[in-house]
This record gives sequence, structure tokens and C-alpha cells, in this order.
Amino acid sequence: MAKKLQLHADRLFSSNEEIRNIARTLYRSVKDLPIISPHGHTDPAWFAHDQNFDNATDLLIKPDHYVFRMLYSQGITLAELGIETIAGESTETDNRKIWQLFAKHYYLFRGTPSKVWLDTVFAEIFNIDVVLCEETADYYYDTINALLKTDAFKPRALFERFNIEIISTTESPLNDLAHHKTINASDWQGKVISAYRPDPVIDPEFEGFVSAIKYFGEITGEDTSTFSGYLLAHKKRRAYFKATGVTSTDHGHPTAKTAYLERSDIEALYQVVISGQANAEQAELFRAHMLTEMAGMSVEDGLVMQLHPGVSRNHNQDVFTRFGRDKGADIPVQCSYTEQLKPLLDKYGTQPNFTFILFTLDETAYSRELAPLAGHYPCLRLGPPWWFHDSPEGMRRFRQQMTETAGFYNTVGFNDDTRAFLSIPARHDVARRMDCNWLAELVSDHRLTLDEAQELAVDLAYNLAKKAYKL
Amino acid sequence: MAKKLQLHADRLFSSNEEIRNIARTLYRSVKDLPIISPHGHTDPAWFAHDQNFDNATDLLIKPDHYVFRMLYSQGITLAELGIETIAGESTETDNRKIWQLFAKHYYLFRGTPSKVWLDTVFAEIFNIDVVLCEETADYYYDTINALLKTDAFKPRALFERFNIEIISTTESPLNDLAHHKTINASDWQGKVISAYRPDPVIDPEFEGFVSAIKYFGEITGEDTSTFSGYLLAHKKRRAYFKATGVTSTDHGHPTAKTAYLERSDIEALYQVVISGQANAEQAELFRAHMLTEMAGMSVEDGLVMQLHPGVSRNHNQDVFTRFGRDKGADIPVQCSYTEQLKPLLDKYGTQPNFTFILFTLDETAYSRELAPLAGHYPCLRLGPPWWFHDSPEGMRRFRQQMTETAGFYNTVGFNDDTRAFLSIPARHDVARRMDCNWLAELVSDHRLTLDEAQELAVDLAYNLAKKAYKL
Amino acid sequence: MAKKLQLHADRLFSSNEEIRNIARTLYRSVKDLPIISPHGHTDPAWFAHDQNFDNATDLLIKPDHYVFRMLYSQGITLAELGIETIAGESTETDNRKIWQLFAKHYYLFRGTPSKVWLDTVFAEIFNIDVVLCEETADYYYDTINALLKTDAFKPRALFERFNIEIISTTESPLNDLAHHKTINASDWQGKVISAYRPDPVIDPEFEGFVSAIKYFGEITGEDTSTFSGYLLAHKKRRAYFKATGVTSTDHGHPTAKTAYLERSDIEALYQVVISGQANAEQAELFRAHMLTEMAGMSVEDGLVMQLHPGVSRNHNQDVFTRFGRDKGADIPVQCSYTEQLKPLLDKYGTQPNFTFILFTLDETAYSRELAPLAGHYPCLRLGPPWWFHDSPEGMRRFRQQMTETAGFYNTVGFNDDTRAFLSIPARHDVARRMDCNWLAELVSDHRLTLDEAQELAVDLAYNLAKKAYKL
Repeated sequence: MAKKLQLHADRLFSSNEEIRNIARTLYRSVKDLPIISPHGHTDPAWFAHDQNFDNATDLLIKPDHYVFRMLYSQGITLAELGIETIAGESTETDNRKIWQLFAKHYYLFRGTPSKVWLDTVFAEIFNIDVVLCEETADYYYDTINALLKTDAFKPRALFERFNIEIISTTESPLNDLAHHKTINASDWQGKVISAYRPDPVIDPEFEGFVSAIKYFGEITGEDTSTFSGYLLAHKKRRAYFKATGVTSTDHGHPTAKTAYLERSDIEALYQVVISGQANAEQAELFRAHMLTEMAGMSVEDGLVMQLHPGVSRNHNQDVFTRFGRDKGADIPVQCSYTEQLKPLLDKYGTQPNFTFILFTLDETAYSRELAPLAGHYPCLRLGPPWWFHDSPEGMRRFRQQMTETAGFYNTVGFNDDTRAFLSIPARHDVARRMDCNWLAELVSDHRLTLDEAQELAVDLAYNLAKKAYKL
Repeated sequence: MAKKLQLHADRLFSSNEEIRNIARTLYRSVKDLPIISPHGHTDPAWFAHDQNFDNATDLLIKPDHYVFRMLYSQGITLAELGIETIAGESTETDNRKIWQLFAKHYYLFRGTPSKVWLDTVFAEIFNIDVVLCEETADYYYDTINALLKTDAFKPRALFERFNIEIISTTESPLNDLAHHKTINASDWQGKVISAYRPDPVIDPEFEGFVSAIKYFGEITGEDTSTFSGYLLAHKKRRAYFKATGVTSTDHGHPTAKTAYLERSDIEALYQVVISGQANAEQAELFRAHMLTEMAGMSVEDGLVMQLHPGVSRNHNQDVFTRFGRDKGADIPVQCSYTEQLKPLLDKYGTQPNFTFILFTLDETAYSRELAPLAGHYPCLRLGPPWWFHDSPEGMRRFRQQMTETAGFYNTVGFNDDTRAFLSIPARHDVARRMDCNWLAELVSDHRLTLDEAQELAVDLAYNLAKKAYKL
Repeated sequence: MAKKLQLHADRLFSSNEEIRNIARTLYRSVKDLPIISPHGHTDPAWFAHDQNFDNATDLLIKPDHYVFRMLYSQGITLAELGIETIAGESTETDNRKIWQLFAKHYYLFRGTPSKVWLDTVFAEIFNIDVVLCEETADYYYDTINALLKTDAFKPRALFERFNIEIISTTESPLNDLAHHKTINASDWQGKVISAYRPDPVIDPEFEGFVSAIKYFGEITGEDTSTFSGYLLAHKKRRAYFKATGVTSTDHGHPTAKTAYLERSDIEALYQVVISGQANAEQAELFRAHMLTEMAGMSVEDGLVMQLHPGVSRNHNQDVFTRFGRDKGADIPVQCSYTEQLKPLLDKYGTQPNFTFILFTLDETAYSRELAPLAGHYPCLRLGPPWWFHDSPEGMRRFRQQMTETAGFYNTVGFNDDTRAFLSIPARHDVARRMDCNWLAELVSDHRLTLDEAQELAVDLAYNLAKKAYKL
């Protein structure tokens, strides 16, 4: 007989009764606050067109690289999971069979945040009360698919059910934001904004960079064959994004390196990069210079700047060749900030109208560099634990290593950073629970009063994100 | 009056009653499981000849660099500890006096795993019930020596008493495995296998490398003056090892760097290294290339590959000059994996018949690189916390930083990695206790169910090691 | 109505009753031990002249870069805090107004050690029983200022009230130690010694280096235009310091790099550096060589050597240009020790009369490099968690990551390292509480006996510092 799936009311709280009681108290005051989701990767088309999702496999497995990376690591091939190859070779098309394979190996996720999120989705969104395993695979598949066909499971209905106050997606400057415009023009009240993510036109090593630069010129009406025109194109496109409600930019770079070159040098370098001939060092220098330019534009237009550095993308050559990018093979590398950010901070670090939010996958930078930097520079704020560290232990390390030097008010609340729409409430709930538990620890050993902790709990769950992202 | 030595039944379990109760339950189901010891450094001669050990000092102090490094760090000289110099200068020969010196300074080990292991050895193996100190030194020395002379304390009897199902030693390709063959041919049922550790014929900076290469050719009948012959010598010797029951190779390199050179380049480089003229960069490149070759051979012959990188060996010049290598002066350095392993993984990372187990002394790589790598590549598995991190806090950090991204099933159980034979049960016991306590924490805050934890406890203590090492 | 300020008797102890009870027992035996303060930055003039402090703002805000860095990070300007610019521009001069600004933003310090120290100062030294906030700002300001005018709040009276057995300040070799001599010659019994901090005459990148070298020659009567004369100047000045009671030297370098050059090479390099023409690499090499020379002199004269590496000083260019050095913009960088210290350790690492205390702001070095080094080399000892890590969580990480490899006896107790005189008892109290709590954890899970913990508690709070610094 299948085992019961039950979410415990005290999950993620300390086993120490004193801490747990305080955590419960704090959590009660934040669990129903609206969700502010200032950074993520949901598809705006969902909210623009409000079509039903098709089936459990296409919704919950295929787009979630957290899920298929673990299955892949234990010998299940991407083809068996129905991931399409670039060459269009035949891969599994029976979505039920893929779901069964997933169910059979669901035990692999024990101890991972994916399991915490998925179990919450199953129990709270689909109201399922048995654990997922080989035996219950079909029951799950049928139950989820049936519900997905109903009106209550359309994207807008779920958005409202999830109590999302505002959500941000992420788009390239080449995107026309048609879906966002559709949403804005509709009579639906949900707030869905984008973020300006210019990597495809800033990173010379991005696939299709040269033609992207041309297209960037076409859509902005600027002459992107010159560096001046290229900067104007950015300004114009940032204004275009901003006009739709956008409040932030996002930059995913291999390193945190920044630079500010002499005008003649950057103009010469620009000619090399748009010729498609830049070597690795030139590409890095161009990205570095452009981060500083982006900071300068943020000082002018007020868009909050986000930097997500330090990942070796598409590390698995075989998977990249056969299946393309973003297939769960992005691996972090060492990342340093103190020296690398100095050129940008020298130029714009003390400007009053500038917010610069830093993320990392290299936790060694938490106490060594990021907390000291954010505990000093007025522009700097600390993004929440990111990606692999968006997890209970990751959140604990973040608070333990950041708080004493940067305090709470140089952090910006939680980001779900996800394309897995259904997991958004679960992710915010994990963050709220872990923050309440951390505050409860500080109260229990008398580093905070309960009053202070109660104010902080609301700040961490709601106010700080709203304020930092100007929402 | 000497103080009582008492091992508490709940040692290493949380003080929180709820967690402790769960930990006890889990521990009960694993504490008596047989020991799988897939990686270690015991002397196979012990089990081949089954001679009694001589005395407490020669057994427990002199060969244990964990023990004498701490004494040395507080001003006791290696000569006082009877460690022999290369030049044969006179050092202490009175083993009782050395034992007394150790006993007097035993307080230095407070808070270290060495003390946990040694107290367990004293209490459980020698049945001693007073703590070791200056006053009890002679009592200890006499009691231990008397027991060591008995049949019950012969190596094979201890092996059986320790409930060891299988143990692996580590030998150079130049070793003829005579002791293992003796054991295999005997009527004793104990399983003692070796591991193929080719550093002496792969690392151009290893003492005696040039003559080792010649000898490698002689014993294999291959022409090691050419790179082709050298590769054939490896293949033949791996087969020779495998025929005695060996299932793994082991590689201790200064870094995790891998490479795959063009054939003509590696052939030219090989000529340089066997001439003894390789500079540091060439030596590093040769080691890097050979790791990839070893991976290729593992894909062919199925031997599980282990990599232990990131140590500056024999760091103390004075000690190295006077006493030789392996005298407790090996100091870890920063170690990165993401970029360094890419050439090997590009070539063999997705081969189905390949298991590649990674270790580290740089814990910063846990959450940043190793867990993401092992949580993706099908060949990769995570070795347990190694050497300085084979300790309660080290194990806690390993689980806290690895589990959320890599899960449990990309880890391989415990390795004792020791030459201190008597400490083996104590070391496995520490690992089992710490794992049960970690699982109990996950149950107590509802990240795992008790059912799941019970399955995992057995997997971590027994199944995962057996499976990963193909035992 | 203002909220109560109450220091809980159990602050910083675990919420687990068993651990807390043990921690209480241990703490009782150390809380009243005299303070040994072997490394700090108080002003010896205070104790020489024993003048009253002027007001709360000048005493508690302006000199404390921990305090104003946090306020600055949230948009308060240094001018508003009354920090003087180099150019003498007008900044806030109304100290009451500055105090009010601080009070209004005191909530920013929630979760930081600054708040723990300050609340302790307010409650225990000034006997204030309401929390600091906008409403209580004036009450605080008036209360503190009134008390500061009394005899009981003169520096010597506070020194005695704080139960300080000995305190060390830090001075440049160019300082004549007049204040220390005044104290020594007085009939006051307080022990105030200096430490020899030669950075201004060792670091070619220190402001005013070239003229400092000339002055160094003048005050020592040695010819500092030659390297030999320069070394003699050091020796003479070290002897001068030592004659006043000094027992240690202190070195704050950008990295831990050491070197030992051939005599002709260092003589040539010296000519470059005293010409003021050294490039960054030459400056680094000179510092590296001089660390080894300093070690050699310590072997001779017995002064304990301290190294504090790994900070990028005055990172904020704008603040540095306008306000000068030491304005809360020092940001740590990655720091490695294993390879960088080898030249020094090769030369002096096994000398019996040598104590070399290492500090770090890069916590990744704790378990990877520092504990293994200190757990081996007889000269090495581990300084306490430093600066940003002088905090409850920082201390916990230090013990968790150092103890298992280095033990307790290769550590040196606590340093307050502060210029905030009034916070000294609070800082030592935090360290004593956190150490007692850590020992209590080890007792509670049976890694230590209570007897052992009691001995260790006194060693960590008092004996180890006294012994390591030869006080």
C-alpha cells in the first residue's frame, strides 16, 4: 500500500522546542503575505494567453533541469526523458512512460530541495496524499493531468491562488515584450513585468552574437556598427523595457570582472567583437567594460542592476553538442568580487541613485567579500542564496555568514529565480520558514528580541524585496 | 586516582532528545553491519603471515602521522618519538619511554578525532577502563603489549572480530602482490584486495621515477622506452592486479588537472619525462594527460577510478631532509575541479561503464563544484570526507554541503583510508553515528520520513560502498 | 514607551537545556578571570594622561569603523557623521545631532556583533536600561556624557574596573613609546605595553615610506641607506621596544607571501624600494623577504611574531580620496598560506625559540591550510577569529573548523584587536561565552569529559593567551 504524503506543519523548523515555538510565531505572521517575485524565468505567454497546461511531464519534468540533472547523474539518458536533440533524433515521446520513469527514481531526490518543492506541489496544489513512487505513478499522472485541464489550473487562476503580488520574468533586449504588453493591455489585474537581460548583445561568446548586434540596431533604429550607436541602442531599449513596467536589469557573466576602458580603446575593442573575431580575453574585457556602462545607465534611468557571475555554462560537451544549452550541466567556478568589482565601484559605487544586487554560487565569497562589500558600499545589496543554494542548508549558510557583517538590511529578501511556475509558493515558503527559524535562533540565544524578530520576519518575506527592486 | 574511561552509548548524537532518539533507532540497524573498507593502507603482510604485533608504540604511535604530527606541533621532536632518520642518527629506542611521552601529552588530542578513535581502541579492543595519562602510561603499555601477544590479537583474528567483509590495501604497479596472492591461496576466508596506485610510474616528480619506469618495463615485458609500450605496461599490470580481485585504481595528484594531448605531443613529452629532465610544468602536463589515459583504461577494464588531489606533500623541508616522506607534513592547497576535469570528462564523462570517485581536502569545492558535478555526470561519485576531514565536524560539513545538490546516491559510503588497523572499527563507527545523526536531523525537521531514513542509513553504512566499488 | 534593554544571563548559550547547563557551569569559572588583551589598538595616551573622555559621539561613533561602515552602507554620508575630510570641508560638528542620527538607525545593527557589544556597553558600563532608538537618543547622550565626566570613567579607573591584567597597543617603529614610558614610570600599576608594527618601514606602498626610512635611520643612528644598516635599525628598534616590556611584533600585509632572497638581490631590491620607484611586484617581494627577516630576528630576540594578511585596504576610491585611510572600506581577498609561507618556514619553521601566530579573513583557509599547518609546525599558532569574524557565528566556525586538526593547544585564546576601549569587556565576554558553549557541545555529545572542558575553558579564556604572547 502506498505511503501517505503529509506535509508537517513544522517542517524545516528546529527540533528544539524553544526555537520551534518562536519560529511558529514568526511564521504565522508571514506565511500569508503576498509573494513578491522580483527575479524569475516563468514564460509570460502563460499569463498573456492563459491556456491550460498540457500534462504533468511537459510541465514538471522536461523544463526542470534540477529534476533531469539528478536522473541523468544516475544513468538515465536524456533521450529516455524525452528531451529533444538538436538533430531531431528520436527520443521518448510517451509522456506517461517518462512520468513512470521519474516516479520510479523519485527516491534519488531524498534530501534535496527539489523533493521539498515537488512534494509541496503535489500535496498543496494537486491535493495528492500518497507519496510518489513506481506504484503511484499512474495515479499521479492521471490526477495531475485531469486537474490541469480545469479552469482553476489555468495560469492566471494559479497566479491568483498563489497570492502573487508581482512577478518578474527575464527577457533579452531583442524581445519585443509582446506578451507583457498583452497582459498590461488586458483587464486582468495580475502584474507581470520583465527584466532587461542583455547577455545576448553584451557577451561576444553568446551564440549568434554578431547577428544579434545587427538585429539590435534594426529594432532600435540605432547604428550598432559604432560603439556610440550601440550604447544608444541600449539606452533606447532600456527605456522601452522601462515603459512596460520593468525595474531591473540582469547580467549573467562568467566572472564578476569589471573595467572601464578609455573611449578609443573600447571603440576599437567593439569593432573586434562585432566582427566575431574576439578571443577569450577580448570577450572578457568587453563584458567587463559593459558592466560598468550598464551601471552608468542604471545611475541615469534608475533600473536596479543584478549580477549573477561564476558559472561554467554547458560543461558537458557531449550533452551540449547533442541537446544544446541549459541541460543541467552548468557548473560553478571560483568567483572573486573585491578586486573584480573595483573599476565599476570606483566609477559608480557612491552614486546615490544606484542599486546593485550581487549573487554568487561560490559561498566562500559570502563572509570574505560579499558581506564586507555590502556592509560598506551604499549601492550594494546581497541577492538571496542562488540556484544550487536555494535550499534549506544553503539559506542557513547565507544567513550565518552574511548577517554579522552586512546585517539584514543590506539583503533583498527572496528570489525564486525559477521557470517552474507551480513551485513558486513552495520556494517562497521554504525561504520564509528558514528565515523565521534563523530569527528564532537569534531570539532564543538573546541576540534579538522577539519584537525585533517580528519586524524582521515581515521585512525578509516582503518589504525588502519590494523596496530593493523598486516595486 | 585515574579517571574512568567510558564510551557513552550516545556519543556523537545530538543533545536534542527528539533527534537523539531517531539517531539511536537508525544506528541500531547499522552498527553491526559488516565493514566494507574499499580504500585503505593496511599492510597486506599482516594478513598473509598473521604474526602478532610487537608492542603498543610500534603499532599505535610510530606509523600514525595523525598522532605524531600533533605531538611534534607542540615541541616534541621526532627523535624523541623514535622516528628513524634517513642518516641513521640515534633516536629514542626505548618504546616504553616513547609511550610514556605520548601518554603525558595525550591531553593535546582533546577535541580531535584521533582521541575519539584511540579511546575507542583502548576501551573496546583492549578493554581498558581508565583514561590514558602520565599515571596510567605503564598500565596501558603493559596491558596492550600482553594482549598483543595472544592469538586473539593476531591480524586475522582481529579482522574477523572487526567483522570486516572486505578490505582494500593500496599498492604500486611495481608491487608483485605476493601477500595478496598468499592470502588468496590460503584457506583463510578473509578478503583482502589491493588497489592500483600508479603514482610512482605516472608522476615524473616521484622519487625514483626514471628507474621505476625501467622496472615497470621489466616486470611487464613491455618496452617502456616508448609511450605505446608504457601504455601497454599499464594495461597489462592493471589486468594483473584485476586478476587478484582488484576493483579500483587510485591517483594522488598535486592538482585535479586533466588533459588529452595529441599523440605526437604526448609521445614527445614522454621522452622528456623518462629522461628525468621534465620541468614542473611538463610534469604537471604529463600527470594531467595520464589521468585521462587511466580513465580510458577504466572504461575498458571496468576498474573504478579514484582521484585524491590537492596536497603539498612533505612541506617541512627540514623534516623531509632528515626523516624522509610521509611524516605528517602534508598540507592541503586550494583545489578546483570544474575546469581541470573538463578534458577528461569531455572524453569519457558520459561512458556508461565508468565510475570516477572524487575526493578533496579543499572543502570549498563541496557545494561549489563537486556536488554540482556529481549531481550531473553519470560517471562521477563523491568520496567521503577525506583525511583531515574524516572527523565528526568534517562529516557534518560534507553532508550539509553535498546532499542538497548531489543527493545521497551520488556518494559512496565511508572509506577509512588508514594504516592504523586497530582504529578501523572506530572510524566506521564514527561515520555510522554521524550519518545516523544527520539523517535524524532531516527526519526531525520533516525533510525525510523515518522509512526513508532507515533505508538510507543502511545504504550509507554498507550498500553504497559495495556498489560503487563493485565489491 | 521605550523598550527595556536587558542582557540575558544566558545570552549566546544554546537553547538546548543540556548544553546550556554545561555552558553555564563552564562560564561561571571563567567570567571573572582577568582580561589578557595581547593585541589591540587602544591609545596609550589615555592611560598615560588619564583624562576624561569628552562625549559619546567622539568616543563611540567616530573612531569605530564597524559602526560608521554600516550607517554609510545604508546611505548616510560620512559628512553627516562628522568624519573630517582631508581638505577640511565642513562636516557635521553637532555631536548630539550625530548621536541622534546613529540612534535613529540603530536597528540596522540587528544581528551584528556591534550591537551585542554596544548593548553590553550601554547596560553594563553606563547602567542604561532602555533600548537605543530615536526616542531615547537624547537620554542616552546626556547620561553617557554625564558619566564620562566623572572620575569613575577616567581611563585608568575603567581599566581597573574592566579587570584588565595587561593590554597591548600597537605602534610603528617610528613611535618613541613616550606614553608607555610615562605609564611605566608612573605609580599606576596597570600594564600597558606596545607591539612592534613595522609596516610603515617595511611596506614600500605605505604612504610616506621613503621619508619614513630616513627617519628610521635618524632615530636609530643607523645608516638606512644600506640594507645592512636598515636591518640593524630594526634590531635596535626591536630592542628599544622590548626594553619597555613589548613581547610581540605585528605585520599587516596584503598577502602571506614570504621569500628569502640572495643577499645581493635583496640589497639591490632595497635600493629600488628606498628610491620610491618600486613597482607592485617589487614591493610585494620586498615585503615577502622582510617577513622572513623579521622571523629571523624573532628567533634571536624572542619577540612573538603575528601576521594579519589578506585585505584590500581603502577599497572605496572616493572615500579614500576625500576622507583618507581606515574609513571602513577594507575588504578581504582570497588568501593562501601553504605555498606562501614555505620560504619562511623552510628557514625558521623548526627553530625552538620561535612563535608565529597566523590570522586570516579568508575562513576557507581554516580547515584547508591553517589547521593543518598549525597542527604540524612547532612554531605556528592560530590567532583567534579576526575582525569581521570576531562575532558569535565567526567564533563558532573557527572552533568547528580548526579544533579537529589543530586541537585547542595550537590556538592562542582571544584578542579583542580594538580601539573601542569600552567594548573590551563585552568582546572578551562574547568569546568566553562562545567558547564555553562550544565546549559544552563537545561535552554534551561525549567528545570531551566535563573535567577536560573545565580545564580547557580556563585555558581558552586566560592561560593560552598569556603563554603564547609570553606575558
